[in-house]
Amino acid sequence: MDFEPMHQAVPHLTTALTGPLLALEERFLQNETLIEQWFHEKWLSTPVPFYTSVDLRNAGFKLAPVDTNLFPAGFNNLNPAFHPLCVQALQAAVERLCPQASRILLVPENHTRNTFYWENVGALVMLLERAGYRVRVGSLMTGEAGRYDMALANGRTIAVEPLTRAGDRVGVAGFNPCLVLLNNDLSAGPPDILQNLAQPVMPPLSLGWWNRLKSQHFTEYQTLAAEFGALTGIDPWLIDPIFRRCGCIDFQKRDGEECLAQKVDEVLRLVGEKYREYGITQEPFVIVKADAGTYGMGIMTVRHADEVRQLNRKQRNKMAVIKEGQTVQEVMVQEGVYTFETLGPDQAVAEPVVYMVDRFVVGGFYRVHTTRGTDENLNAPGMQFRSLAFAESCANPDGRQAPDAGPNRFYAYGVIGRLALLAAARELQSAPKEARS
Amino acid sequence: MDFEPMHQAVPHLTTALTGPLLALEERFLQNETLIEQWFHEKWLSTPVPFYTSVDLRNAGFKLAPVDTNLFPAGFNNLNPAFHPLCVQALQAAVERLCPQASRILLVPENHTRNTFYWENVGALVMLLERAGYRVRVGSLMTGEAGRYDMALANGRTIAVEPLTRAGDRVGVAGFNPCLVLLNNDLSAGPPDILQNLAQPVMPPLSLGWWNRLKSQHFTEYQTLAAEFGALTGIDPWLIDPIFRRCGCIDFQKRDGEECLAQKVDEVLRLVGEKYREYGITQEPFVIVKADAGTYGMGIMTVRHADEVRQLNRKQRNKMAVIKEGQTVQEVMVQEGVYTFETLGPDQAVAEPVVYMVDRFVVGGFYRVHTTRGTDENLNAPGMQFRSLAFAESCANPDGRQAPDAGPNRFYAYGVIGRLALLAAARELQSAPKEARS
Repeated sequence: MDFEPMHQAVPHLTTALTGPLLALEERFLQNETLIEQWFHEKWLSTPVPFYTSVDLRNAGFKLAPVDTNLFPAGFNNLNPAFHPLCVQALQAAVERLCPQASRILLVPENHTRNTFYWENVGALVMLLERAGYRVRVGSLMTGEAGRYDMALANGRTIAVEPLTRAGDRVGVAGFNPCLVLLNNDLSAGPPDILQNLAQPVMPPLSLGWWNRLKSQHFTEYQTLAAEFGALTGIDPWLIDPIFRRCGCIDFQKRDGEECLAQKVDEVLRLVGEKYREYGITQEPFVIVKADAGTYGMGIMTVRHADEVRQLNRKQRNKMAVIKEGQTVQEVMVQEGVYTFETLGPDQAVAEPVVYMVDRFVVGGFYRVHTTRGTDENLNAPGMQFRSLAFAESCANPDGRQAPDAGPNRFYAYGVIGRLALLAAARELQSAPKEARS
Repeated sequence: MDFEPMHQAVPHLTTALTGPLLALEERFLQNETLIEQWFHEKWLSTPVPFYTSVDLRNAGFKLAPVDTNLFPAGFNNLNPAFHPLCVQALQAAVERLCPQASRILLVPENHTRNTFYWENVGALVMLLERAGYRVRVGSLMTGEAGRYDMALANGRTIAVEPLTRAGDRVGVAGFNPCLVLLNNDLSAGPPDILQNLAQPVMPPLSLGWWNRLKSQHFTEYQTLAAEFGALTGIDPWLIDPIFRRCGCIDFQKRDGEECLAQKVDEVLRLVGEKYREYGITQEPFVIVKADAGTYGMGIMTVRHADEVRQLNRKQRNKMAVIKEGQTVQEVMVQEGVYTFETLGPDQAVAEPVVYMVDRFVVGGFYRVHTTRGTDENLNAPGMQFRSLAFAESCANPDGRQAPDAGPNRFYAYGVIGRLALLAAARELQSAPKEARS
């Protein structure tokens, strides 16, 4: 006969939790079973990407995704207490795609010797090994440029080896992997060495930034937010940033500038209407960003349409070229969502990032920065931020606590993160079959 | 560019950790990658039971399973911090067996109004709902005897309804489940209403205690312990209790008593040899238990063969009949493993129980009792014990800490728990196909 457990307390760590967001969180809590059943049915018909991270903005009145990354770095920033969640989810993800896999080839970014990026690679290798797989790291850089060792903070070394191709199989010397896991977002295009392989490549080449458009993602997300809003009885705008798209921009030649100004104007007007509807007194703003970009390059905060008519040379250059030297031609104008959450006495701005493997939320962290404004992007080149691991799982709401208590706020993040994941899964569904490798 | 996370500490709670077990734990840690790969390959070829709990004994020099339950209760005793692990694992388990399932019928024990058992049912319902399933609870008791409400400590109520059968489908009124999850160990035999169903029944009827033998489980375990010992370079005895089996016992008529005494003698002699080999000065003992039993009924601690020759009427009665009034005919004589771990100033005995869903360790707890000896069984009827949830996951070893640090000891429990799970999976494989429902 058991008594009540002597110790059931969930450790409660200090995190960047200060805001209200009560109405939304409360609605999610009330509808938890309905929401989980809804997701469950969606996953049955929608295969998900291998892994995903979602940048969220929490404005207090609004909680929305602003970027969804299908080649996430930052696994080193997750709370080690939740590594078992990652390990379980990695096994589920690999098994779904390749049930008999025992050897995995991880393909990282080429260009970087950024030690923080390599801590991420180290974390991924450790988690995959803990899941029972043999792992090697293969570089897209050919020849000896692709062979180097990266030392990690824990004293371990990541041995990077150049990829080798034999017929329709890729590997590294002496290692014939069952599958290829990309942690390289393919901004430069789909590499020849990874095309038409017998092995599965995850995520598929077609989801690289050479091909993927943010606007397609947010179009899918918009449809889902409407459906989710109807399910839970919330205005979809509260979880969905308004956006418009401009094609055929040439920042250097100033082509398309007027089109861009009009879209900026339109989004600012629509956001202003919503702000009035909800009695929000802050000034609307938009984020202008490359439709096919990553790494926070090619991003601008804009408060008035005139600002995009008056870009100086430096601003135009900054917007014109993103990672791997790709030229920006398509631009997304997205409603800016104020960052509400702050941390500590100096009111450092804190932005949540949610990590998923397969369909499972496995953790997340806050990007914390003391000097940025609440309307600026924290994921920009040269930006220095600290990361603060979520103290608790995003999948463990507690109805006995207040809606903004840690476990419940993290649950809200997990709900919106998975909604963005579902949008990415629909991108995957609509990707051409042959490009799914 | 990320800095090191500001907060990565794993909360370290007080648990029943006092012993050495260093050599074994160290060997497991050194071989972690090898062990995880070995398990991974085993799971590929061996479908696992739906859920499993394993009672362990930790003697300091030896860590071994003593009972493996395929219809585990006690989910309410797990640390809520690891509920997300359960939820993920439940999704994996259901999906493997029945990918499109959305409605689950949970069949609990009949006979009990034990409130602690119903807290377990409540925890299972909550976890399955959180995994996105609709759940109803159906009783094997027919008619109105099978309809009652059980109030839980959290204020929620479990509505139990009598099972109904229509053709080859079972359900409860207005609920047509995709699958049937048994939390009833079928000591009384396979119920007619659950036979020859179109729906999958998990675990299969053939694994109920009406059919299952502990000795078959430990025969499978012995084979695996030998293989695992060769893999990791340890003496298999350090993880495997010696046992012998006696058939055709009748405690009431005193038939088979001499056979039993001989087996007791043999096991005591073999354990004594091992104790001398390892310089262990404690006195060997054996546990005599029903081969097809559960709930700690029909269990005796024996230090000398003469003890089973001199059973008084009360002792014979106690051994003769187990749950559901079944007569004991087959008996297992198992090496007793001293309980090494103690807790608190009064040196309460603490025995670990590891819980698994599908192939994943999802938590565990200690049975803690202040008045029992280190050589007695803590899971006995009328026994009152407190449960102490494991403070940390069993799947998150930390090579930077000492081998007996919390995460590493819990990892050792998880390794031995999974070895017993694998033995149970082999029982499942050798169960007749038609009996797998």
